[in-house]
Amino acid sequence: MAIQANDVTLKSWVEVPAHSDFPIQNLPFGIFSDGGDGRVGVAIGDHVLDLSLLAEVGMFDDLDIPDLSVFYESTLNAFIGLGKATTSSVRNRISQLLQHGNATLSGHEIRQQALIDRKDLKMLMPVKVGDYTDFYSSKEHATNVGTMFRDPENALLPNWTHLPVAYHGRASSIIVSGVPIHRPHGQSKPPEAEQPVFGPTRRLDFELEMAFITGKSTELGTAISTADAEDYIFGFVMFNDWSARDIQAWEYVPLGPFLAKNFASSISPWVVTLDALEPFRIAGPVQDPPVLPYLQISGKRNFDIHLEAAIQPENTTATTVCRTNFRHMYWSINQQLAHHTVNGCNINIGDMYASGTISGSGEEAYGSMLELSWKGTKPLTMADGSDRSFIEDGDVVIFSGYAQHENIRIGFGDLKTKVLPAL
Amino acid sequence: MAIQANDVTLKSWVEVPAHSDFPIQNLPFGIFSDGGDGRVGVAIGDHVLDLSLLAEVGMFDDLDIPDLSVFYESTLNAFIGLGKATTSSVRNRISQLLQHGNATLSGHEIRQQALIDRKDLKMLMPVKVGDYTDFYSSKEHATNVGTMFRDPENALLPNWTHLPVAYHGRASSIIVSGVPIHRPHGQSKPPEAEQPVFGPTRRLDFELEMAFITGKSTELGTAISTADAEDYIFGFVMFNDWSARDIQAWEYVPLGPFLAKNFASSISPWVVTLDALEPFRIAGPVQDPPVLPYLQISGKRNFDIHLEAAIQPENTTATTVCRTNFRHMYWSINQQLAHHTVNGCNINIGDMYASGTISGSGEEAYGSMLELSWKGTKPLTMADGSDRSFIEDGDVVIFSGYAQHENIRIGFGDLKTKVLPAL
Repeated sequence: MAIQANDVTLKSWVEVPAHSDFPIQNLPFGIFSDGGDGRVGVAIGDHVLDLSLLAEVGMFDDLDIPDLSVFYESTLNAFIGLGKATTSSVRNRISQLLQHGNATLSGHEIRQQALIDRKDLKMLMPVKVGDYTDFYSSKEHATNVGTMFRDPENALLPNWTHLPVAYHGRASSIIVSGVPIHRPHGQSKPPEAEQPVFGPTRRLDFELEMAFITGKSTELGTAISTADAEDYIFGFVMFNDWSARDIQAWEYVPLGPFLAKNFASSISPWVVTLDALEPFRIAGPVQDPPVLPYLQISGKRNFDIHLEAAIQPENTTATTVCRTNFRHMYWSINQQLAHHTVNGCNINIGDMYASGTISGSGEEAYGSMLELSWKGTKPLTMADGSDRSFIEDGDVVIFSGYAQHENIRIGFGDLKTKVLPAL
Repeated sequence: MAIQANDVTLKSWVEVPAHSDFPIQNLPFGIFSDGGDGRVGVAIGDHVLDLSLLAEVGMFDDLDIPDLSVFYESTLNAFIGLGKATTSSVRNRISQLLQHGNATLSGHEIRQQALIDRKDLKMLMPVKVGDYTDFYSSKEHATNVGTMFRDPENALLPNWTHLPVAYHGRASSIIVSGVPIHRPHGQSKPPEAEQPVFGPTRRLDFELEMAFITGKSTELGTAISTADAEDYIFGFVMFNDWSARDIQAWEYVPLGPFLAKNFASSISPWVVTLDALEPFRIAGPVQDPPVLPYLQISGKRNFDIHLEAAIQPENTTATTVCRTNFRHMYWSINQQLAHHTVNGCNINIGDMYASGTISGSGEEAYGSMLELSWKGTKPLTMADGSDRSFIEDGDVVIFSGYAQHENIRIGFGDLKTKVLPAL
């Protein structure tokens, strides 16, 4: 599908630094605050375009938007609920308005007010999350975990290649980049202990994931086919599924992770649309054994998105500890959504669906400290000389990610979270 | 704590049939519709009292409620968000207004309009559920499941007596009594099959549970102590955690139940307040081994609530298949909420926390067909002569429950759900 706004020859009258995550071909949506309530904005270079102001002066009047108040909301839910035809037309309009040579906005009196320096703004949660699901769709990650905790000869459990394994997570504790977390307390049982102990986790970890956000709801009882799944998907954010490994190991049988995960999950603030990622489609791994008919897909359903994780110890520089790619996912987003709804489970606008840790095939491509330090047996060395098996107090964990095509980088912006000591 | 509205000597000028779930001592809150949008009501005998009308004529004017529009909302969230001091004062006021001899309402011109026959109304979901958690807090149930699927000698996993095991469920698919469900499709792997198969579940089951609803939110990072937990709990509903056992058996390792549960969960429409259940406090089972300090409780933290499940095959009478009691729970609601938040996980108004299947010690007291029919090996005989190992198409599953004290029954009303064939 050719989307005009993705044309790599487009240039903007807004200055876009080299290697910016936000050229005119991206135009991700987010919620920003200049001190007051959140409003809807689009990232361009080092700026945010205030869509509420553009709406106010009539720049979306011909786009068939029933109520322009969607641009004044403090979440994107109402905006993305307009439907993909409308949200795509808004993105296309913004692309036109920002194009070099177009004077509608560049020559308008609101130009200065509408284009705000990103460093003067605070980004808020882009959506109100109804339900949140976490998949487990990287074969490399599932294999690593199975090798460490079960049997290297049978690392993948029998169901893994037949269905995209997933579990429900906690929506209330999803926070946006920049919000610090405290090291959580919890119960664990060290191997040498007779009884469980209580205290701050000693094995705090990140999980490098992507998450998609649904933009259309279904009624209970309705299944979404793999062919239709993308009609329901608005866009992506990066996702840090914070994990406390010692708590997890003790609590997770038989019903899955709970307190080891629900103390916080962090997301990047800009929702990159499926439209903007169109040029970066790529085929996923061959699925063998073949999947059941309701999970079969055709066409390119994975996305070539480079991802990195870095750790910045307090008062020093960051060290990149992981370089991986979203293209490695064994189960595509179409399959995830089709599986999730095949039993009639209903979905809502703003629901979030994370991929599970995205590990690649090399040791540098592992998406969690659990794998990178191999359960703490191979600590990593930071640029400042210190070692890391897991995340320490004062560390900032930084995810970055982008798709790249002919020097155009469709990026996600940083996802940064500082870890504070236990309360 | 003596609560005036619980006085067993109170009588109402509204006729309350013998054995009604809704005497003047109960006064549960719910959302009703007479065709239009939902409004807040209270059950009394066979009637619903329309609180929006009472608010309109000033009957709550002295109760320090900042905005009376809470009674016109289509969920209880705003009302219960007023805080327990206020919601308790509203319940006390309604108790006064309904008392024999009080003419304020009985002699008021709105009396006819405000008191509506329950059979002319439809009950809606009482709350908008933010997050939903399901515990696994009945020792008898966990022991039965462990015996069937693992090892009778070590039926309980090592963590079970140390923490209230729980997992996150799907909030979007929680429905109210009266809404039918369709038998869900899914993937399963019969023992004799080489490969998984896809189709309607062959082992549809209920789980008889109670659920509490939180009425107060916390900030991320905040823990709630067992001593403070009840300040955050508004009341209870009955909860049917529908389960597809064949799907569950195949999908649940290693991350827990997912599609086997999230196709639907059904709740009773009336939220019975913690205030109304005050006279029915009872000590729970002795916990051995002793629990960690953050889980220790004092006082009576269980509730003596008789619970039944019945199956009504199409066009015939119902057969009661389970008689159990909420008092059996090993883990109390105080411990559940303290554990849930000990890592800083934040909670919101309207969140729902189900108990897990409530099984008692006798075979008749098992709270699921899985246990009652012992994995299908001991089918139950219905009143019409048919057998049931699991739930069949056309069956209506009916939960009922009440606490009883000196002929006063604090009941929950029926939770009825019809199972329709797969779509």
